[in-house]
Amino acid sequence: MKNAKLQAFIPLFYLVWSDDLLTQKEFVTLKEFIKSQKKLSVEEQEYLLSKVDISNPPSRNELTQWKSDIEANIKDKSSIKSIFDIAVALSEKDLDISALESDFTKLENDLGILGEEVIQNFKTKSDSLTANSQTTNSFDIQQLTSILNGKEAPIINRVKSIISKPEFAYETSTDINIYRQTVYKWCKILAEENLGNMAYPKQYGGGENIADYFAVMETLSYHDLSLVIKFGVQFGLWGMSVQSLGTEKHYAKYLKDIGSLKLPGCFAMTETHHGSNVKGLETTATYNHNNQTFTIHTPNKNAQKEYIGNAAVHGQMATVFAKLIIDGHDYGVNAFVVGLRDANGNILNGVTIGDCGHKMGLNGVDNGTISFDNVVIPKENMLDRFASVNDKGEFESPIPSDNRRFFTMLGTLVGGRIGIPRSALSAAKSGLTIAIRYSDQRRQFGPEGGSEVPILNYRIHQRRLLPHLAKIYAVHFALQYLTNRFLNRTEAEMQEIEALAAGLKSYSTWSTRDILQECREACGGKGYLSENRIDALKNDTEIYTTFEGDNTVLMQLTAKNRLSEFRKSFGEMGSFGIINYVYENAKTAITEKNPIATRRTEDEHLLDGEFHLQAFIHREKTILASAAKRIKRLIDDGLDTYDAFNVVQHQMIDVSQAYLERVVLEQFQIAVKAVEDLKTKEILTKLSQLYALSQLEKNKAWFLEDGYMEAVKTKAIRKMVNQLCWDIRPDALALVNAFDIPESCLSAPISKL
Amino acid sequence: MKNAKLQAFIPLFYLVWSDDLLTQKEFVTLKEFIKSQKKLSVEEQEYLLSKVDISNPPSRNELTQWKSDIEANIKDKSSIKSIFDIAVALSEKDLDISALESDFTKLENDLGILGEEVIQNFKTKSDSLTANSQTTNSFDIQQLTSILNGKEAPIINRVKSIISKPEFAYETSTDINIYRQTVYKWCKILAEENLGNMAYPKQYGGGENIADYFAVMETLSYHDLSLVIKFGVQFGLWGMSVQSLGTEKHYAKYLKDIGSLKLPGCFAMTETHHGSNVKGLETTATYNHNNQTFTIHTPNKNAQKEYIGNAAVHGQMATVFAKLIIDGHDYGVNAFVVGLRDANGNILNGVTIGDCGHKMGLNGVDNGTISFDNVVIPKENMLDRFASVNDKGEFESPIPSDNRRFFTMLGTLVGGRIGIPRSALSAAKSGLTIAIRYSDQRRQFGPEGGSEVPILNYRIHQRRLLPHLAKIYAVHFALQYLTNRFLNRTEAEMQEIEALAAGLKSYSTWSTRDILQECREACGGKGYLSENRIDALKNDTEIYTTFEGDNTVLMQLTAKNRLSEFRKSFGEMGSFGIINYVYENAKTAITEKNPIATRRTEDEHLLDGEFHLQAFIHREKTILASAAKRIKRLIDDGLDTYDAFNVVQHQMIDVSQAYLERVVLEQFQIAVKAVEDLKTKEILTKLSQLYALSQLEKNKAWFLEDGYMEAVKTKAIRKMVNQLCWDIRPDALALVNAFDIPESCLSAPISKL
Repeated sequence: MKNAKLQAFIPLFYLVWSDDLLTQKEFVTLKEFIKSQKKLSVEEQEYLLSKVDISNPPSRNELTQWKSDIEANIKDKSSIKSIFDIAVALSEKDLDISALESDFTKLENDLGILGEEVIQNFKTKSDSLTANSQTTNSFDIQQLTSILNGKEAPIINRVKSIISKPEFAYETSTDINIYRQTVYKWCKILAEENLGNMAYPKQYGGGENIADYFAVMETLSYHDLSLVIKFGVQFGLWGMSVQSLGTEKHYAKYLKDIGSLKLPGCFAMTETHHGSNVKGLETTATYNHNNQTFTIHTPNKNAQKEYIGNAAVHGQMATVFAKLIIDGHDYGVNAFVVGLRDANGNILNGVTIGDCGHKMGLNGVDNGTISFDNVVIPKENMLDRFASVNDKGEFESPIPSDNRRFFTMLGTLVGGRIGIPRSALSAAKSGLTIAIRYSDQRRQFGPEGGSEVPILNYRIHQRRLLPHLAKIYAVHFALQYLTNRFLNRTEAEMQEIEALAAGLKSYSTWSTRDILQECREACGGKGYLSENRIDALKNDTEIYTTFEGDNTVLMQLTAKNRLSEFRKSFGEMGSFGIINYVYENAKTAITEKNPIATRRTEDEHLLDGEFHLQAFIHREKTILASAAKRIKRLIDDGLDTYDAFNVVQHQMIDVSQAYLERVVLEQFQIAVKAVEDLKTKEILTKLSQLYALSQLEKNKAWFLEDGYMEAVKTKAIRKMVNQLCWDIRPDALALVNAFDIPESCLSAPISKL
Repeated sequence: MKNAKLQAFIPLFYLVWSDDLLTQKEFVTLKEFIKSQKKLSVEEQEYLLSKVDISNPPSRNELTQWKSDIEANIKDKSSIKSIFDIAVALSEKDLDISALESDFTKLENDLGILGEEVIQNFKTKSDSLTANSQTTNSFDIQQLTSILNGKEAPIINRVKSIISKPEFAYETSTDINIYRQTVYKWCKILAEENLGNMAYPKQYGGGENIADYFAVMETLSYHDLSLVIKFGVQFGLWGMSVQSLGTEKHYAKYLKDIGSLKLPGCFAMTETHHGSNVKGLETTATYNHNNQTFTIHTPNKNAQKEYIGNAAVHGQMATVFAKLIIDGHDYGVNAFVVGLRDANGNILNGVTIGDCGHKMGLNGVDNGTISFDNVVIPKENMLDRFASVNDKGEFESPIPSDNRRFFTMLGTLVGGRIGIPRSALSAAKSGLTIAIRYSDQRRQFGPEGGSEVPILNYRIHQRRLLPHLAKIYAVHFALQYLTNRFLNRTEAEMQEIEALAAGLKSYSTWSTRDILQECREACGGKGYLSENRIDALKNDTEIYTTFEGDNTVLMQLTAKNRLSEFRKSFGEMGSFGIINYVYENAKTAITEKNPIATRRTEDEHLLDGEFHLQAFIHREKTILASAAKRIKRLIDDGLDTYDAFNVVQHQMIDVSQAYLERVVLEQFQIAVKAVEDLKTKEILTKLSQLYALSQLEKNKAWFLEDGYMEAVKTKAIRKMVNQLCWDIRPDALALVNAFDIPESCLSAPISKL
């Protein structure tokens, strides 16, 4: 029973017995199809039906034979497009079969099979588009590294060479006592290298170089992050609080020993019940005029200092924030230097230390709690740059308002909000380097008959990682900008810079959180093994979104600053003024908002940096005005200011977000413009386009609601983001290698090239 | 120099010296203002100017005096709305001042001050709206718990009482050897309680109750997740693989000992180079007809079994997946039982075990690697339900296609993709219980002069947590639905159920990831301390998005299933067919898409469950058709199927997402409809509305692009989400307490009520 007509049915047999998507229902469909073929004899029909009897499957050998028959017959025949075409090929000599074409087509449809797809499964090919995308690099990696490092290159390279030494091998013990000691030992080495006192005045042994200090923090962050935080607590928080809030006598007494780590100390601000709302803290410093001392006291359990780095084990002194009380009057929060332990590590009388114990991360840092039971300190221990008690026992300050004095004090500590986001960005760079290197080598799945394909060739994988790569570059330049603004600040700019720092701290640390999350998942099971370091990077930076100011609270601060700037620029703050502003803004946007612009989708336009920036600016301005208008209306309607701000909290986050995105894009574009080398400029331009367009895509609902873009344009942007990912993919490896992270720091086995 | 006219300037002095937003520029503005007041004498001007001399600030006492003067004068005067009004109040008797009104207004504008805001800062009040929102419960908690537990309540309560016993106190050692032994000990206790063998046939000592087995997994997940995974590896993966892939002889030989944990074992499928693409694994099982054995062999380092739970320490046997080779022919992946250790724990000859070492989480599970060096096993160790070698040494199988056989084998293991999402959901419930309890008690900030406010009263905090609460309830019912579908499955439904399980596994585990992330941040520093358990919950569930199938890969599978279902339902798969479908779909959507519907914003409509479901369905159908159309077009244009699917990967995720969201909402609505108690029904209805609207908000860009909604509507939805959060907030505590998680399991100090 073998004739050419029957051969025509082989592809159908093969399909029903092999396709993993067809089910019992399809057997029934096929049987009915066979029965309906009037040109077949009863004998032929019975033979065919016996081949689709679910209780009597063909042997595996028979199935394999069918497959090779089909493959042999369709080989190199590009004209074959449907199952019927295969049937024809298998039954070449039987011309009769042509009458069956429409029946076959109907059957294909009934079975829900896509002919072309089936055919391709029979063809062996290894050179699909997807498989062929390959790593190359279109630019000089070292040049890009130089651009990233800028003039900090010497100190960056020095730090890299130090942390690459054998004594900086990662601690692998899970015992936090061992880990804490290792980190302390590392800090001592860094102090010996004069890295800790980098920012202190030269007369106290320091390097008097704040720019270098930030670069040190950033570069150390390629290594263990407990080290970075312990280092930052000692030399940044503890040392800088003495330097910023104290006066000459404190510098002379403490700075040298702090810088050499002879005097380990703490920054004791946060209390159990007062973290974000530091102004409400309850520890008291009561002035005793009779003996010229202060009594530091913790009035209740929830006023204990908590999460204090260096407290649980090493700290000998602390800058303690407490409410100053003179003669029963509360003069607001001030800072005092208070002893915790003697030089041998014995805890002093009246001081109680607790251990915060095991944490999600940063277990090399000895966070603890501190309580004071009427601890007496000499008068000169008050850090008295902004307030003091005079000889008559009276309060004195150049800043009469407690509130403003407090914020001025905090303002001097803004450096932390620059160091932390830069540290966070380094962690993101490490994570993405590991993930991209792995994705470039890890192969999984592939075209039928071809070999497996690097997972970075998959569009979805590119989508997961490459917009993050663009974002890291963008944030890098934004943080350089923030640092420069801070280093060259004038008094008048301070509030703006503080708001920018608060905002970029949030933006950068949230970005790191998202990037490391994606890296973990993109590396699958390998990303879960501690040896590959994403574990530590992720868990250590997890708290970055909370410390140095909770991000959500900081975003509200930044938004409030934007609102106040807005009010100053647009005088009349009545509803009329805002409406006027909105109207003016709408007018300037009118060229961008005409039907042609809102629908433009040609590549040149979509990739135009000017278009990107204008769109970001439009969003920033419109959201700001709309928030101002809403608050005004709520208050006009009789709501408390406090309640009104509560109602718009969600919108305030958008105000900050839109502002920060504009700053980040603007600074990225400015940085790219300054690049001279053409190849480098080209790849950075692509990254800035990808950053801009992926943000526009993320915010597309807003642009559609606003009418700034129409659907045709937002859809085109989505496609362009995909295309840019595909175009950047070959350079992805070179782009992470340009971060130039020491191999010993990356350490992850999956990151080995 | 004190007259009423000068008193009028006090509020201005106070503002410039106290407001932390005003800067030097404002001093200049104010000085100019004073100089421009022609009605003042030179002497008066000089006096006033002396009060705004930046080099000579007022004393703190003077500032305090100004403040109390202002406060005393405006107390209880609700008519005071601007700084000028204060000025008037302070200079009551001097009628002259009225002439200054417009000057003052201009000054307010120049300074960027909002009068109402300033006034409120002088008024002491503690009863703002925000401060007054309080925890109550509008429904009976126990009734809701009963609804959640359903008919599994008895086993759930039994498991809860077991894990609340003292011997289940959490292991706090960071030594993984100690932790692994503790978890093993816990598993033994559970085996003794007959919980491990819950799903096995009664004749082998089991409980023959799969529904209860899932409930056990889910309830154990309130406790340590290493325990859950170790339990799942032993009784689920190892035991169920024997039960699902083996035959009578294997049941008789192994099941009882597996169920009692006398025979600890592994599920050895994943290899270093083959995780997602399991079909490509390289371990071989070569049949030796001469002595009726198989030789299990690891051909290269990357073909070692990796991440295998129970392997590093406890496993004595393993179900090993390997390519069956007979006479040099490859018969695809099959499963074999292979010994690893003897009963004393000595590793057998030819077996090499590695230890995966420390992981991001789940460190109580001993994951390891396994390599085989020509290990010989008897023929009967082949798990031969779907394929076997006959007496003649020939391959035999009721499923001739290797591919289909493989997927059929995997299909029998789908239970894991039900157990894991249910476990993930329990972890999310624990995390959210901790975070909501803490947020209800933790106070920070507050209205001027009032006490601090529970942070859950802040809109942004509600936004962060309450949509997640709604989602947890929604997913709970969807997973009950999935479980029921699985328990009552017919052969014909299997592919759909597998796709649903793959999808909901992804949906649930990604939700858990997001929820725990938010919980960590919402709890601030407390959320970072290991004692509060978010650490463990987060890090343990981190890998849930990878194991039992990488979520991104699973979402592609689910989408492919949807496409194939789509093809079957809409016969003609030519472009014409799809266009037809799209057209038909558009027609049915026409009533919903008319200009009135797309702009409807009244509360009743926005809260209407029917509107929600229709919108979800419209989205699901449209995205599916559009993906089908796109793939068809790409292939028509000459792209390989493989490449075409690569191009649309991003869209495929949307296909699955839209499908899953529809299923989740639909099942939530069905569950709510079945509730009889009115109070319970009311709160669940609110949660289903919040789930629906927050998903619509998340997807609003799509709805705007599609034209299904206009901006006015999406904006109204955003507001309604805020409103629902506010409305649900008083019940939030009761809603997490209804999860009824044992206090000993929650354990977090911050969750104590």
